[in-house]
Amino acid sequence: MRGARIARMALRQTAMCSARAAARHHAVPIAARAFSASAIRADSTAPSKLTANNYPDLKRNPNFAQVTPEDVKFFQDLLGSASAVIDGVTADASDDLSPFNGDWMNKYRGQSRLLLKPATTEEVSKILKYCNDRKLAVVPQGGNTGLVGGSVPVFDEIILNLSRMNRIESFDERSGVLVADAGVILEVADQYLAERNHLFPLDLGAKGSCHIGGNIATNAGGLRLLRYGSLHGSVLGLEAVLPDGTVVDTLSTLRKNNTGYDLKQLFIGAEGTLGVITKAAVQCPARPKAVNVAYFGFESYEKMCEAFKEAKGRLSEILSAFELMDGRSQRLVGQATGNPLPIEGEYPFYGLVETHGSNGEHDMAKLEEFFEHIMGEGIVADGVLAQDETQFRALWAWREGITETLSHLGGTYKFDVSIPLSDLYRLVDDTLERMTRLGLVGDDDSFPVRTVVGYGHMGDANLHLNIAVRRYSKEVEEALEPWVYEWIKECRGSISAEHGLGLAKKQFIGYSQNDVVLGMMKQLKALYDPNGIMNPYKYI
Amino acid sequence: MRGARIARMALRQTAMCSARAAARHHAVPIAARAFSASAIRADSTAPSKLTANNYPDLKRNPNFAQVTPEDVKFFQDLLGSASAVIDGVTADASDDLSPFNGDWMNKYRGQSRLLLKPATTEEVSKILKYCNDRKLAVVPQGGNTGLVGGSVPVFDEIILNLSRMNRIESFDERSGVLVADAGVILEVADQYLAERNHLFPLDLGAKGSCHIGGNIATNAGGLRLLRYGSLHGSVLGLEAVLPDGTVVDTLSTLRKNNTGYDLKQLFIGAEGTLGVITKAAVQCPARPKAVNVAYFGFESYEKMCEAFKEAKGRLSEILSAFELMDGRSQRLVGQATGNPLPIEGEYPFYGLVETHGSNGEHDMAKLEEFFEHIMGEGIVADGVLAQDETQFRALWAWREGITETLSHLGGTYKFDVSIPLSDLYRLVDDTLERMTRLGLVGDDDSFPVRTVVGYGHMGDANLHLNIAVRRYSKEVEEALEPWVYEWIKECRGSISAEHGLGLAKKQFIGYSQNDVVLGMMKQLKALYDPNGIMNPYKYI
Repeated sequence: MRGARIARMALRQTAMCSARAAARHHAVPIAARAFSASAIRADSTAPSKLTANNYPDLKRNPNFAQVTPEDVKFFQDLLGSASAVIDGVTADASDDLSPFNGDWMNKYRGQSRLLLKPATTEEVSKILKYCNDRKLAVVPQGGNTGLVGGSVPVFDEIILNLSRMNRIESFDERSGVLVADAGVILEVADQYLAERNHLFPLDLGAKGSCHIGGNIATNAGGLRLLRYGSLHGSVLGLEAVLPDGTVVDTLSTLRKNNTGYDLKQLFIGAEGTLGVITKAAVQCPARPKAVNVAYFGFESYEKMCEAFKEAKGRLSEILSAFELMDGRSQRLVGQATGNPLPIEGEYPFYGLVETHGSNGEHDMAKLEEFFEHIMGEGIVADGVLAQDETQFRALWAWREGITETLSHLGGTYKFDVSIPLSDLYRLVDDTLERMTRLGLVGDDDSFPVRTVVGYGHMGDANLHLNIAVRRYSKEVEEALEPWVYEWIKECRGSISAEHGLGLAKKQFIGYSQNDVVLGMMKQLKALYDPNGIMNPYKYI
Repeated sequence: MRGARIARMALRQTAMCSARAAARHHAVPIAARAFSASAIRADSTAPSKLTANNYPDLKRNPNFAQVTPEDVKFFQDLLGSASAVIDGVTADASDDLSPFNGDWMNKYRGQSRLLLKPATTEEVSKILKYCNDRKLAVVPQGGNTGLVGGSVPVFDEIILNLSRMNRIESFDERSGVLVADAGVILEVADQYLAERNHLFPLDLGAKGSCHIGGNIATNAGGLRLLRYGSLHGSVLGLEAVLPDGTVVDTLSTLRKNNTGYDLKQLFIGAEGTLGVITKAAVQCPARPKAVNVAYFGFESYEKMCEAFKEAKGRLSEILSAFELMDGRSQRLVGQATGNPLPIEGEYPFYGLVETHGSNGEHDMAKLEEFFEHIMGEGIVADGVLAQDETQFRALWAWREGITETLSHLGGTYKFDVSIPLSDLYRLVDDTLERMTRLGLVGDDDSFPVRTVVGYGHMGDANLHLNIAVRRYSKEVEEALEPWVYEWIKECRGSISAEHGLGLAKKQFIGYSQNDVVLGMMKQLKALYDPNGIMNPYKYI
């Protein structure tokens, strides 16, 4: 049992991080997490194929007006500041508009000729009222870090970018409630809270670029939903603007408020199709004083499930993340970085377990007890515990580096799905088996598919199924869709766990929602946005 | 510093509850909590004034049909079982209907002549479709433990009682997700989960009688929202029936599911005005292995706020409740029970701090460190820690016995409000000051008001303001309303934190919600219930 020995040695040797140092781990952004932001900048110069060409069935809605020079003049007068309007209607601004017309994966590209950056809710209201009256389509845009094409135009929709609305309005140390503009960057909000010993109840790879308004509009889940819960619970209040310019103020800062229908919930996860979120009140927990992370190798998926059950029972209130990475994903990261895996030998499954607690000694004792149990019972084959900040970052990089690694290998078909735990990894096996059977996967360049990997937030039953390809091809697409969605429907999973619908999943929503529910969704859309100007062509 | 000494002694003497014993504390219902259920039975025989007489401005909606013998026949044929229909239309069933026509406080009394107890979602669907077509008004009813008259009829509405829909459908130990019928009693669900080492993420005084469907329909908050969050976060999916009989199946058991508008949220807290919840999928946390409770005396409200801040920081992830009881409330409980207060001396404020954790030794160490800090800094004057199950129950009884104590003293005007923490207790002071100034409060029987007390869930900024009266009187009512609501509006509080709107708060909703929001609520009500048959005369 060399593995157990190593892990136990690691545990015994552990120099307990001081509370301050541990808190710092968390405050310092992990380098690997920031890649999405830089990827946006790096890739957006390369002209990608227009979304309109990639989706030939999509036609521009002829009911929408086209932006005229008079419209541009109206918006310039309204917003005042020259930098608040990027005008591609009366001037050539295609370079300036390019980063906003495309997504960071370079997968979607719109043809907007006007970008507006309001600075106040009142400006948002006047813009939307004007657009609604004129039937000008609008795409709300936060940090533009989404993965489903939800925040970029398809045709010539006006881009309503919230980045100038970036003020933190208040923070109440007694209650832990933060009130901030929608355009505040998640990491900025979290750093602000770190200085006040609190934590934003959401963390995700794109934290350096994404906006909290966008997070809420897409109901982002992220790395620690397991611990800090869903935004449906932690967002206490919202201010939002309806398409007709009506400002909906439900900006309560109260934990309990049972006075009528909870309207703010409608905007959480609506991806800007019902209105634009302009401010949010968020319940923030105390920042953990001790943060630990451990990395394990497992001999089977079943054993990993057992370990998760034990982690829930033994780490209980301090468990903050339980992440799954399959062996293929980890070996790819190893090849890309040239680093040896954190533990020796090869395992089909690796797991990352993180704790957030208020007492480092207690947390370490719980971790030791957990380790001893899962090793003693043979549930885990080998493991290592981060002993300082560098190791903490390094272990997380094995999980967070997967996306970047894959992006360097060529294209990736990404599926972000929820599947009941017992069936979760079977989708990866079945997909690889299908690709193999169809002769699509192989080691040399004649095969379109390089490999199939699975990873994700096991604690939330959220799998990221990634098919790494040498080139995008109709053949592979047709082998995957709708097959993957049918597979998911059969086990009552969700075709979009946390990435949302956007343009990418719109046509597949029927695999996760029934006709009654779809009918009710369309009814709500018609109620709040009768002209259909808000983020058209997407969602439902 | 006698107090500090006593508390430290208590700490040192503490025989740590074993994990099993502590878990038992939680599983065994505290006697004081069950009173509401028995109160319903005990008082319901006394004929109370009809709601229709107490609210003379309320008129029966003439658009509603009256129940005919043919209607009764339809329902009898549909439901089959004789016990599923209590028929006061073609027979005299006023005694049998009485408990369902009134609430446990004996404050509201309706005149329904028909009660239906469907056993399946299909039956609920057929009942509602029939009622909607016939324009027969309906009141959905769970355990009927509400405080605002929401679950009893006003006039002759048909009572749709969910008590026969009481099946626990499934529990997944891996994910912690429970799927159960709406009519399952909260305590039954929690006991079922206790046997599987899990906990229902909601606990409240009426747990022995209330239904989980009713809890969700009223967005109940309860004792441990601070720790386990709101039902908007922990309810993963719902099945509900719309007034036209449409069954809305959003019964997802997935933690993450971003595929369209989160329709289930509309039913959470809608108090049965949009439809009837028939099933729920609920995310349940691991049951704590160690439970502790301590009781403190504070010399001022400010010091109590400081203690709360320290509890959040030092107890952090194990803090499960932080309750406030003012001195008057505790002395009344003491007089009623004949028991001496848990700590000697008299303090203006008392607090109850509870922890839920997975390791008793760690929790105790955190509590000791917390106690030493708040005593060393003079934040707390005196305190005591429960050392066994009996003491655990006894300490909680000082908090949970307040309502019962007041009910024996005469009438009580109850306000359940949210107020930002800094202003929270000032409402009690100001109310007492106002009652005194108006000459309404005093020690002898000539004064209508006996006393004014405040208590509640400080951790959630949720205050229960209670005005104990010798007799209900217009004079007192007029001194309180709308004055209390104006006071709350000024500090952006909520006029109903967790009890909901029902009939009691309907007319005051404007103090907590603006016209835009009210307009949107009415729009939703008209959308889903165009005939207005669901729980009429109440809510918005």
